[in-house]
Amino acid sequence: MIPRYSRPEMVAIWSPETKFKIWYEIEAHACDAQAAIGVIPKANAEAVWKAKDVEFNVARIDEIEAVTKHDVIAFLTHLAEHIGADDARFVHQGMTSSDVLDTTLNVQLVRAADILLSGMDRVLAALKTRAFEHKDTVRIGRSHGIHAEPTTMGLTFARFYAEMARGKARLEAARAEIATGAISGAVGTFANIDPSVEEHVCKMLGLTPEPISTQVIPRDRHAMFFATLGVIASSIENVAIEIRHMQRTEVLEAEEFFSAGQKGSSAMPHKRNPVLTENLTGLARLVRMAVIPAMENVALWHERDISHSSVERAIGPDTTITLDFALNRLAGVIEKLVIYPDNMLANMNKFKGLVMSQRVLLALTQAGVSREDSYRLVQRNAMKVWEQGKDFREELLADAEVTAALSPEEINEKFDLGYHTKHVDTIFKRVFG
Amino acid sequence: MIPRYSRPEMVAIWSPETKFKIWYEIEAHACDAQAAIGVIPKANAEAVWKAKDVEFNVARIDEIEAVTKHDVIAFLTHLAEHIGADDARFVHQGMTSSDVLDTTLNVQLVRAADILLSGMDRVLAALKTRAFEHKDTVRIGRSHGIHAEPTTMGLTFARFYAEMARGKARLEAARAEIATGAISGAVGTFANIDPSVEEHVCKMLGLTPEPISTQVIPRDRHAMFFATLGVIASSIENVAIEIRHMQRTEVLEAEEFFSAGQKGSSAMPHKRNPVLTENLTGLARLVRMAVIPAMENVALWHERDISHSSVERAIGPDTTITLDFALNRLAGVIEKLVIYPDNMLANMNKFKGLVMSQRVLLALTQAGVSREDSYRLVQRNAMKVWEQGKDFREELLADAEVTAALSPEEINEKFDLGYHTKHVDTIFKRVFG
Amino acid sequence: MIPRYSRPEMVAIWSPETKFKIWYEIEAHACDAQAAIGVIPKANAEAVWKAKDVEFNVARIDEIEAVTKHDVIAFLTHLAEHIGADDARFVHQGMTSSDVLDTTLNVQLVRAADILLSGMDRVLAALKTRAFEHKDTVRIGRSHGIHAEPTTMGLTFARFYAEMARGKARLEAARAEIATGAISGAVGTFANIDPSVEEHVCKMLGLTPEPISTQVIPRDRHAMFFATLGVIASSIENVAIEIRHMQRTEVLEAEEFFSAGQKGSSAMPHKRNPVLTENLTGLARLVRMAVIPAMENVALWHERDISHSSVERAIGPDTTITLDFALNRLAGVIEKLVIYPDNMLANMNKFKGLVMSQRVLLALTQAGVSREDSYRLVQRNAMKVWEQGKDFREELLADAEVTAALSPEEINEKFDLGYHTKHVDTIFKRVFG
Amino acid sequence: MIPRYSRPEMVAIWSPETKFKIWYEIEAHACDAQAAIGVIPKANAEAVWKAKDVEFNVARIDEIEAVTKHDVIAFLTHLAEHIGADDARFVHQGMTSSDVLDTTLNVQLVRAADILLSGMDRVLAALKTRAFEHKDTVRIGRSHGIHAEPTTMGLTFARFYAEMARGKARLEAARAEIATGAISGAVGTFANIDPSVEEHVCKMLGLTPEPISTQVIPRDRHAMFFATLGVIASSIENVAIEIRHMQRTEVLEAEEFFSAGQKGSSAMPHKRNPVLTENLTGLARLVRMAVIPAMENVALWHERDISHSSVERAIGPDTTITLDFALNRLAGVIEKLVIYPDNMLANMNKFKGLVMSQRVLLALTQAGVSREDSYRLVQRNAMKVWEQGKDFREELLADAEVTAALSPEEINEKFDLGYHTKHVDTIFKRVFG
Repeated sequence: MIPRYSRPEMVAIWSPETKFKIWYEIEAHACDAQAAIGVIPKANAEAVWKAKDVEFNVARIDEIEAVTKHDVIAFLTHLAEHIGADDARFVHQGMTSSDVLDTTLNVQLVRAADILLSGMDRVLAALKTRAFEHKDTVRIGRSHGIHAEPTTMGLTFARFYAEMARGKARLEAARAEIATGAISGAVGTFANIDPSVEEHVCKMLGLTPEPISTQVIPRDRHAMFFATLGVIASSIENVAIEIRHMQRTEVLEAEEFFSAGQKGSSAMPHKRNPVLTENLTGLARLVRMAVIPAMENVALWHERDISHSSVERAIGPDTTITLDFALNRLAGVIEKLVIYPDNMLANMNKFKGLVMSQRVLLALTQAGVSREDSYRLVQRNAMKVWEQGKDFREELLADAEVTAALSPEEINEKFDLGYHTKHVDTIFKRVFG
Repeated sequence: MIPRYSRPEMVAIWSPETKFKIWYEIEAHACDAQAAIGVIPKANAEAVWKAKDVEFNVARIDEIEAVTKHDVIAFLTHLAEHIGADDARFVHQGMTSSDVLDTTLNVQLVRAADILLSGMDRVLAALKTRAFEHKDTVRIGRSHGIHAEPTTMGLTFARFYAEMARGKARLEAARAEIATGAISGAVGTFANIDPSVEEHVCKMLGLTPEPISTQVIPRDRHAMFFATLGVIASSIENVAIEIRHMQRTEVLEAEEFFSAGQKGSSAMPHKRNPVLTENLTGLARLVRMAVIPAMENVALWHERDISHSSVERAIGPDTTITLDFALNRLAGVIEKLVIYPDNMLANMNKFKGLVMSQRVLLALTQAGVSREDSYRLVQRNAMKVWEQGKDFREELLADAEVTAALSPEEINEKFDLGYHTKHVDTIFKRVFG
Repeated sequence: MIPRYSRPEMVAIWSPETKFKIWYEIEAHACDAQAAIGVIPKANAEAVWKAKDVEFNVARIDEIEAVTKHDVIAFLTHLAEHIGADDARFVHQGMTSSDVLDTTLNVQLVRAADILLSGMDRVLAALKTRAFEHKDTVRIGRSHGIHAEPTTMGLTFARFYAEMARGKARLEAARAEIATGAISGAVGTFANIDPSVEEHVCKMLGLTPEPISTQVIPRDRHAMFFATLGVIASSIENVAIEIRHMQRTEVLEAEEFFSAGQKGSSAMPHKRNPVLTENLTGLARLVRMAVIPAMENVALWHERDISHSSVERAIGPDTTITLDFALNRLAGVIEKLVIYPDNMLANMNKFKGLVMSQRVLLALTQAGVSREDSYRLVQRNAMKVWEQGKDFREELLADAEVTAALSPEEINEKFDLGYHTKHVDTIFKRVFG
Repeated sequence: MIPRYSRPEMVAIWSPETKFKIWYEIEAHACDAQAAIGVIPKANAEAVWKAKDVEFNVARIDEIEAVTKHDVIAFLTHLAEHIGADDARFVHQGMTSSDVLDTTLNVQLVRAADILLSGMDRVLAALKTRAFEHKDTVRIGRSHGIHAEPTTMGLTFARFYAEMARGKARLEAARAEIATGAISGAVGTFANIDPSVEEHVCKMLGLTPEPISTQVIPRDRHAMFFATLGVIASSIENVAIEIRHMQRTEVLEAEEFFSAGQKGSSAMPHKRNPVLTENLTGLARLVRMAVIPAMENVALWHERDISHSSVERAIGPDTTITLDFALNRLAGVIEKLVIYPDNMLANMNKFKGLVMSQRVLLALTQAGVSREDSYRLVQRNAMKVWEQGKDFREELLADAEVTAALSPEEINEKFDLGYHTKHVDTIFKRVFG
């Protein structure tokens, strides 16, 4: 976790304090369930809740762990210091450490998913606002980095919206998949603990009981979770690359917001760097790098080995924190992106109407000119534009062979931008409903 | 694609013949839709269907492409050779190559997904059969490769079933996501083609219209598709590793099926190698390696660049073919897996009851013996087993300090396997319903 | 392997014919060595060379393998068909299949490396030629895609040269690492074969004996090999991205070569797409995707498992073929790249001298103007350029407060491009010697 | 960075204190060089060294950065607080932030490499010691997890030694590659700073001047560095997997050291988990995950973009810290690994001589028995061992058809372990010299 690329809310999910709080809740709910079926005395179960508002002392737990060499035992020992050894006696009965650890990890991932989902909502809201704002702001569409045909800035925002909305739906699915808990004891047979305990604990924590666990919750769930984050990060990169392209000096169709006082901006007004989106490009790589290790974690030996654990200690916090930061940075960039419609028009007209050459070609053939002749006519006028900087429309209007096939009105119509934007509303309806 | 790791049905999806067939269908359906809205004459549209049963000549198309340097144009030229230049005139009107290529890729991926889903069904059926067959076949559960507590072979199959069933649900979701088509023209504005054409073509091909395309269908869909295959491959690896462990000489709880005549098997009966599951381990790596490139493909420049294309030419066929082969190989392995319940029991009893030491420890404390004393009692008897090969239960029964706390019946009960299997039915119900 | 992204010479290395030829050579050399130490009769060893010029019949070997289910045995059987069963009797004695397979793989990788090295030489030669050709072709250097300070096109080529030269040195190291062979028998103890056989075979094949093998050659060597290819591919991507940027419509400082007759180029002269470098971007992803599987192959179980094999069957040919194709495609692109020095100048002057603002700022402070005042002076003139399209130098020369600190000569000097190119020769000397 | 998987010495390299110290040294040496060529006054250059022993105040620098929004400027401002604004005036002249940042990163990576190299030395020393200790400790070699032929534990250690030694050589090469510095100014043209400054700074820091930089040091160097770490991590995984296999209950040929007092070890003496090597398996995945992002970092836009930076902020510290920890954990595991030669023998004899069946088969054919008959003879005796638990040697000695071909001495010789270990010294000589 890199402090400068993190937000407190997500960081808090991965703090030792949060972790111990979840451990405590799992243990306390388990005691309730054990009491309900008569395995432990009701009074003892109730007593565990005395620690309900305790902020557990991480340093003290670490101190105990230094002796016991076991984190869960250290926590239970510390818990006993709060509720008394006698009442603590029944805590954790029939459970195995993994019951606590794996259920806790999933609680954390679910909470992380919720924060990510609200980050995605912020991105979606920004994209939608900007899409409608620039629904009709014409700019040139580019394939291969080369001018193709006109489109609108709103369509660009709209497609990012659609992509991010898909990402959100995927994350909701991944969240549902990871929202399971397991209190099934050693090797997952429930030999030492009744399935009703698992049901109760899961219910209280907003989880579903893992249908079949083997001491650990199966890691395909986590692999899917991190793979989903990787796809979302790639979509962030997609938006970032677009903005970086728009901001490059020769294009300058948009700029990341630059505050008035920001150093260097006015002495070198051309030198406003898209550092936020460049940063997002890098952050996307960081999120993606968790995907393969998460998949390598799936194949554990027999009922469990602990090779997955160190991986998750790293990618659990790092990946969710990075993606959370990236989503919010992206939202900020979009919300405040400075857009230059005039430059968009200027860019589109860089080759004076040449981007319409294909429409003219088509019109000529439809007017009955042979394919070869049509091509020749377009070509000879296009080359005047390309080589001598002439205006394409004017050249066509002055070319007798062209005007023999097409009327001036027909020629002019080929340069009407409305032709290209006529279905923008249709598309917006598809995307935004 | 490696012939030895491929099955004909999946390979066929990626053949040039199949590809051209899909191209043809897209073009023909598009003509129908164009005719319906009066853009092209109905007669011409109908005429395109004359080629309905044509097996396109790949060599001829390649020949034309060598001249035109453009695959879609080469195909259209060849199509004209079948239906006549006059009727061919209106084919592809208003469309761009990507409309055909991207829609075709998704048709192929959807078909590939269907084959993969039926492969998963075969794996699921095999796992279910073997799970019920060995529901009560006791074997030792292992954590960290070390004996822990008893479980059953049926539970092992059941957890693989549950995992594979999750994989299937994920693939169904990924299939739905990839089942889109786009006939939206250059840069996706529908400037040159009416959205109703896209709707019709998609409907006829079993696809949904891509809500917003930019000449290309957005690649986050494909990234999600390949990521999902990567998770499924990891689950295959999970099963493969389990079987490889079970077959190792010292464990020998199961063996891949070995036909009677297979060379070397009876002169060296110990030397039956789990080569199929080792192979599956490698194939899983091959499937997974497509995940990151598929994610790197998401961020295309502006409305499209073609960097994704070479990647997809490789991973499209290779990954689906490999996974299809792997699923079917896995199904075969499971269907015919030779299981040795006697060896399972022998392994479990390797340390003569020692795996029950924890239950005894718990029983002693519950009987009122202090934690320290309980530990000491278990330890001194355990060490006799470990160091002198004694039987744990017998030693306990002969230890006066133990029998002072626990009756012989109570001690014997700790060695009852039924204790560990009592919830197998519960778990099966959760998994299989 | 995708035919359109492959070159015959590299493909040939991976053909069954080549493979069997290497197998044969290994076996024949091994027989010589066995005869030299008296293990097999000299006459029989010599007789094996009767097949020296045989083109082995792949179909026949496949036919035999269909029966024997073992590739090496099938080959040996076929070999006996050529040299007679009696002389064939001693072939392969004391060896294990892996001795042949692993040594062969390394021979193939070494040959592949040699082809790749000559591909890199072609790239290096092209880069060097273009570097000297454009040593003094000034263009704007860009950081963050934003104009920074002038540099030259030659420096761009020179840095790619330096990077590719590093790649070559790395590949030479990787080639040396992979150039080992092993003829050490089952589990690598030489129990059944004398180490002198390995020495002889390796010597004849241009390999070094693997110091310690375990039936297989350790896979860290292969991991390093594929990792090295991954870095080289990333360097190819680096060049490709530069060219794609240079070709985008608004920049147009260079274009991939476009043959006169190429369809569409003159009717739409603006629409020349950098499809080769976009393709290289994708190919780089394909080469890189082999890196992680190759690393996952390192940890085999005990003396060997065969999980690595399927991975190598795919990445061995696919990765070397793809990289070979990419290197040669890149060389062609560089050799024929069309460069537009005029556009470079036009781009640099887009903001009429503004890129020199930092030099002016520095000059003012060095002339004794306070940092704040210097900044204010530069800023007010810069803004006239930025907002009103004025010329920066002219504005400065007309600003009395500026000319009070700097003479016209001093101001003009700040716009001298020679200032930026004065160390080009120094750098070229470092790079090219 | 996960505290529990880190060692202080490596962590210190990545502390802000270390970073600022290196920044300071770069600036101070650069001043010396600037003074030497008369660009700045000697007195001012000397004055910079007044801060030589200063421990820079990170909190204060952060405080300044909060205002300036620029880390290098913040540092320089703080430096001025130590040496006085007047003397600080000339610091950093002609340099760009990247000169400092990139050179610093390489200094850190070089130092990290040095620590890693000494970690590898520790691993190598441990492996060598254990190899010689167990040079003649016979155990069964396994292919596919199945008993093959005898080998020795010493050979296992020796091959890990050879592999790790290769890793060390690779890291030395990667260290040399990363040991470059750049003080070349904006876009790397040396327009604002003389190359002699770079030479001096590099020399003083133990670096080589980067032959051609573009404001940034080219990232192929870093890609190679992290790829190399990935290969080393994979070799660690290789050793870890071997030990995990050896410790599994049914094999028990070795155990990670377990201190006498360690909880639970003696009440459940069978339950000693190889948690350290399981952990190493996971850590290997974490190191490897940096490889692809490092390669994605190579293709920066034009003279530089900053997408690499966030990636390196994470993988720079995380990867080196994790690998350092892993190497030292591995060394400790090997140093203290408890080895059970008796269990090795017991395992080897599990199938009473059956592992020698191949030698017997060979001996029979060499004695003139036909291949078919030899096979039949071995088979019928092997099956008695396999199915009835007989002893293979005894059965052979009692089989008249066998003894007709082989004398008792010849049969007994086939069970002589010396046959398998006769070349151990040869191999050791190759590995250890």
